Amino acid sequence: PNADLVRERGAASFPVRDLTYLVYGGQERTEHLERIANMVASDPVFRKTDRFFLSRTEQYRRSLEKVRHYKELIAKHNLHSELDQQDLRQAIDEDLPIGLHVGMFIPTIVGQGTDEQQKKWLPLARAYKIIGTYAQTELGHGSFIRGLETVATYDKSTQEFVLNSPTLTATKWWPGALGKTSTHCVVFARLVISDRECGVHPFMVQLRSLENHEPLKGITVGDIGPKFAYETMDNGFLRFDHVRIPRDHMLMRFAQVAADGTYSTPPHSKVSYATMVFMRAYIIGTASSTLAKAVTIAVRYSCVRKQFPLRSGEPEQQILNYQNQQAALFPLLATAYAFHFTGNYIRQMYSDFVRGMRAQDFSVLPEMHATSAGLKSLTTWIASAGIETCRASCGGHGYSKLSGLPSLYANYIPACTYEGDNTVMCFQLARYLLKLYGKAQAKPGLRLPGNVSYLEKSTLLDERCDASTEELWLDPARQLHAYRNRALRLVANCANRLVAEMQKGKDEVLAVEAIKSDMVKVAKAHSYYVVLNNFVNAIEQLRASGTSTPILRVLKTLCDLFALHFIQADLGDFLEYGYLSSLHTEPLHAQIRRLLEAIRPDAVALVDAFNFTDHALGSALGVHNGRVYETLFEWAQQEPLNKTQVAPGYHEYIKPFLLAKM
Amino acid sequence: PNADLVRERGAASFPVRDLTYLVYGGQERTEHLERIANMVASDPVFRKTDRFFLSRTEQYRRSLEKVRHYKELIAKHNLHSELDQQDLRQAIDEDLPIGLHVGMFIPTIVGQGTDEQQKKWLPLARAYKIIGTYAQTELGHGSFIRGLETVATYDKSTQEFVLNSPTLTATKWWPGALGKTSTHCVVFARLVISDRECGVHPFMVQLRSLENHEPLKGITVGDIGPKFAYETMDNGFLRFDHVRIPRDHMLMRFAQVAADGTYSTPPHSKVSYATMVFMRAYIIGTASSTLAKAVTIAVRYSCVRKQFPLRSGEPEQQILNYQNQQAALFPLLATAYAFHFTGNYIRQMYSDFVRGMRAQDFSVLPEMHATSAGLKSLTTWIASAGIETCRASCGGHGYSKLSGLPSLYANYIPACTYEGDNTVMCFQLARYLLKLYGKAQAKPGLRLPGNVSYLEKSTLLDERCDASTEELWLDPARQLHAYRNRALRLVANCANRLVAEMQKGKDEVLAVEAIKSDMVKVAKAHSYYVVLNNFVNAIEQLRASGTSTPILRVLKTLCDLFALHFIQADLGDFLEYGYLSSLHTEPLHAQIRRLLEAIRPDAVALVDAFNFTDHALGSALGVHNGRVYETLFEWAQQEPLNKTQVAPGYHEYIKPFLLAKM
Ligand SMILES: Cc1cc2nc3c(=O)[nH]c(=O)nc-3n(C[C@H](O)[C@H](O)[C@H](O)COP(=O)(O)OP(=O)(O)OC[C@H]3O[C@@H](n4cnc5c(N)ncnc54)[C@H](O)[C@@H]3O)c2cc1C
Ligand SMILES: Cc1cc2nc3c(=O)[nH]c(=O)nc-3n(C[C@H](O)[C@H](O)[C@H](O)COP(=O)(O)OP(=O)(O)OC[C@H]3O[C@@H](n4cnc5c(N)ncnc54)[C@H](O)[C@@H]3O)c2cc1C
Repeated sequence: PNADLVRERGAASFPVRDLTYLVYGGQERTEHLERIANMVASDPVFRKTDRFFLSRTEQYRRSLEKVRHYKELIAKHNLHSELDQQDLRQAIDEDLPIGLHVGMFIPTIVGQGTDEQQKKWLPLARAYKIIGTYAQTELGHGSFIRGLETVATYDKSTQEFVLNSPTLTATKWWPGALGKTSTHCVVFARLVISDRECGVHPFMVQLRSLENHEPLKGITVGDIGPKFAYETMDNGFLRFDHVRIPRDHMLMRFAQVAADGTYSTPPHSKVSYATMVFMRAYIIGTASSTLAKAVTIAVRYSCVRKQFPLRSGEPEQQILNYQNQQAALFPLLATAYAFHFTGNYIRQMYSDFVRGMRAQDFSVLPEMHATSAGLKSLTTWIASAGIETCRASCGGHGYSKLSGLPSLYANYIPACTYEGDNTVMCFQLARYLLKLYGKAQAKPGLRLPGNVSYLEKSTLLDERCDASTEELWLDPARQLHAYRNRALRLVANCANRLVAEMQKGKDEVLAVEAIKSDMVKVAKAHSYYVVLNNFVNAIEQLRASGTSTPILRVLKTLCDLFALHFIQADLGDFLEYGYLSSLHTEPLHAQIRRLLEAIRPDAVALVDAFNFTDHALGSALGVHNGRVYETLFEWAQQEPLNKTQVAPGYHEYIKPFLLAKM
Repeated sequence: PNADLVRERGAASFPVRDLTYLVYGGQERTEHLERIANMVASDPVFRKTDRFFLSRTEQYRRSLEKVRHYKELIAKHNLHSELDQQDLRQAIDEDLPIGLHVGMFIPTIVGQGTDEQQKKWLPLARAYKIIGTYAQTELGHGSFIRGLETVATYDKSTQEFVLNSPTLTATKWWPGALGKTSTHCVVFARLVISDRECGVHPFMVQLRSLENHEPLKGITVGDIGPKFAYETMDNGFLRFDHVRIPRDHMLMRFAQVAADGTYSTPPHSKVSYATMVFMRAYIIGTASSTLAKAVTIAVRYSCVRKQFPLRSGEPEQQILNYQNQQAALFPLLATAYAFHFTGNYIRQMYSDFVRGMRAQDFSVLPEMHATSAGLKSLTTWIASAGIETCRASCGGHGYSKLSGLPSLYANYIPACTYEGDNTVMCFQLARYLLKLYGKAQAKPGLRLPGNVSYLEKSTLLDERCDASTEELWLDPARQLHAYRNRALRLVANCANRLVAEMQKGKDEVLAVEAIKSDMVKVAKAHSYYVVLNNFVNAIEQLRASGTSTPILRVLKTLCDLFALHFIQADLGDFLEYGYLSSLHTEPLHAQIRRLLEAIRPDAVALVDAFNFTDHALGSALGVHNGRVYETLFEWAQQEPLNKTQVAPGYHEYIKPFLLAKM
């Protein structure tokens, strides 16, 4: 192994293994995950390095092979719990064409199917005797769901729905595993009963024969073609030509259509939001782990990579010693940890809600829905940009697919779009915040829930930062004060501008249109506050529960860097209304430099603590043993162009080219 | 064609064609470019849409086919001038494996070869009887060129150089067209004469037989494998096992090795920088055209795409009507125009330099070298991030490769790395600025050259912005004042911190290491100023030369948006030391909103003016006729997975999967 990495690992200020346990929920759970990860990593069917050299069709076939093997392993190792299967899929670490089946199809049946419907379809789905997906988006509509054009017309005479795609833009477009793999699908369509529009509802539709996989009559289905990445996933299109399904194929937990065509509406219209929150909690967790992978690759490589001596004649520097490299990577390292705690928080919030919901308590739903929308946006945006920062910081070799970083990025970024376009999500949170702020203004003394309680205190706007020394910037209360103040300031400005626009004669709809850019800022500002708040709280809880000092110290340093870096990154917000001045920013900058230096000796240990296998990283630059050049060289030899010394196409093209007269 | 686009085109406030002439240098030149572009677009060999569906090897072969056809067309249409050939390659619009030949190999022979060497190799190269590339980077070294490990040892007895790769990390890695295509190569190696190290020099080496393309003895060469994109380009690796080349294969325009081994050094060590400046000028121009393509796609699509009505029952809005969408896209539109003028400026500076150099006048070299380093970094960074902003603003469809945006991005981003890693480039400019600032401080009254003359006036630091109304923010002098003030402030802070670090006991080397993050900021700040200054000057010149009012008006609006947007984006820099306060930022924000509204009706016309063919855009979302859904649907049908109704892999994997017991 690489000597620099060995040395760095020996010099960590904290016991790496303990931090790993902390991240993964204890020693037992960590070891369980390691067993699964090692089983996958040592199984040739699951090898990932060939993916770099396969065509799209080959990659799709390979992922089918993995899917088949996955089911074999479930049987062989008795992995019947959902958690075990999820662990196994996570270890396989590929966008498998059953991802939508487990992630959206089954949860939708659970969330929206009646007990009877669940009894019918869940056993089939859970035993993978059918493969399903979730088809909402159409060529013409994604964000605006009420605009979907696929129609389900109720035919009372036969008690069937007739599904139809009346226009080209009604074509379902994007659903994962729809193109070639799925046998079934939950289709969202506008329900029409006796010419009456009853809104968009989910319908269970069989797409392909279970005998021979041919599409059923009236169904046109196929793959939508190449994407930025996601080669293993057959995102598909789907058109219906008057396809008939029985009445009980509408998922009727909430809205119902009786045999005679009587339509009844759901009791609590927002209840289906719960599934969305569940998905977003998952996405937020993935933001952490994906960013952690990118940072692991970049930090390890930056320890191995040497470029330039400080003075001629001296040995070259590890590039991780350069301040700019640290300034690029360490805030992302801190962010990966921050998002880990955000993920825990939102999962906890969700379980609490599910518990409450059983007792018909929906009270946290609005806050949870809005908060998770904002956090989904903020975390996916930062993780996406962060992966690219990591890639660029690896110089030329980062651009090689063998670095793992291009695929990590290209596979990750749709998280900013699916499950709700990030910008549109931000409006949801901003609207919620503006509403609460308005209420608080109208009714002083009103108590607002948890994360948004700062909106009560408009006196906060008159308060100023007093962190005039480097030391004071390490005070979590002061850090949180700054984030709260910024968020409140932006909410208040937005609210004022809304009023001003209306005073200029706009109605509320147009006034909202005029402040949309500011609403995005509002949503981000609030979400930053939530992330920091949870990081600070998590450390407090760890302290209370007796976590060792070295671990607490390093987590505190990461939390500080997270807090201060993102103030520095948006400094204008904090300066604009005088909350900060150069009196405070100079010690802020100085403290950030100090924190980078403090993290440097622990950087490798901090990425090691994420405990990724080489399989999971899939990167020649991030290999645990640091043999980056050997691995790059070796992997490159597999390139199909290298099968022959003379280029494919030499005789047809190069030779005639060289000989041609001009 | 799409009705919305037709309507938008009819409503432009300026004659689009005139702006096109302005961008491409007149009517004649525009029409010439159009003839070539149309010839390429209508030639089936050059079709680009199949690229989405080909494997890497197939893509490489297709690009060889294009290369062969390119040479045929040169002969057929008598395109013997360099400009004609460049126009043709630009119209083909692909990273062809002769890109390095024309872009680096020939220029290096011109720049570094003796007259005799030029006479020998240039005719061969220009007639494409040999194909060359430029091999500097190694596995272990890119930025630090003096660290290259490839050795060229002079053997006096045979008057030969012996090229050798002593280590794995000495392997050349990355050069374009090296892997499979090139017959020749300029290799950078450390010259050793009688055990004396004489530094890194360029050597002409034949790699492959001109008979059968087999690698010559002692040469191991191949492709480095898959990259983020660049599939058509065989970036390669290269190792030497004691390969002998004649003495006159060292390019000896500057340094020389006599037959007896006497080494003489170059007269002006920086002279080889000129080629670098030439390349950077090209890269800066490409930043404009690439960003222009991305914006064209996103703006057209955003006019066609409709999502959400403002009020229920109303027709849906074009997404380009949303403020956030305008705020994402219009500053990039303005930037594409800004960079166009920056490209003109740097090309002009380069021609002036070349003219001066003939008279042994090298005086502008330091400024030109530093300026172009900074501009290369700023423009490639902004263009890269801008393409992704455009992609994300297209929602889900942006993620389809058929949108053209993923490939545009992935092919473009290495511009941030090659020809000098952007961060490292920033240090070069910052060092230059710090040096001049130091000189000016030491010697008041000193006159500094052109773009950097503001460094003389440290009184500028005491001046404050007085743009307290929206109107005042449209004053170019005030805009420039702000950018100059920010740049000077950052330079001064950097200089002060350098002193402070040295007072703490660091030597200069370590003190520089401690301010590297700030140096990157300095370089960007100066470069923004240069870009804006050139945009403002260009409009002034156009006004003076009688350009029509409607064109001047729309360019001025773009220039204003560029200026104000990038103040808003880095607001902290301007606020931190009190140059701005909320007194100025409120009208700033308001003016930006006003500018977005002003651009909205001209947005389509402004992207149309770039005059890209559908071939050049290669995008289903950006098609000129706006039939985006039809095109997406049609193109997707070509996906190889759609050749059969039943998935490849069904019998081997899906069927057994569905049937397997768990
Ligand atoms: C990889 C991938 C997988 C997917 N998988 C599935 C799947 O399995 N099933 C499925 O049903 N769908 C799937 N989708 C589709 C996805 O859910 C949609 O793309 C997503 O909801 C965004 O919608 P859109 O594409 O219509 O974007 P649009 O709404 O068209 O957004 C385009 C732009 O318009 C802006 N915009 C839109 N509305 C407004 C507004 N009111 N105000 C201001 N700005 C606005 C947005 O911010 C964005 O910049 C997938 C997409 C991808 C990329
Ligand atoms: C698509 C592509 C095509 C290419 N084509 C060619 C070609 O045709 N011929 C050829 O010879 N080469 C080619 N290259 C190689 C390219 O020129 C190098 O990758 C580039 O010069 C960067 O060098 P590097 O990879 O060594 O990066 P590194 O120098 O290793 O940079 C890695 C990181 O370290 C940082 N860093 C480095 N030095 C310092 C310092 N002193 N202080 C602070 N930070 C520092 C950088 O900012 C960066 O973040 C190509 C590369 C690519 C990606």
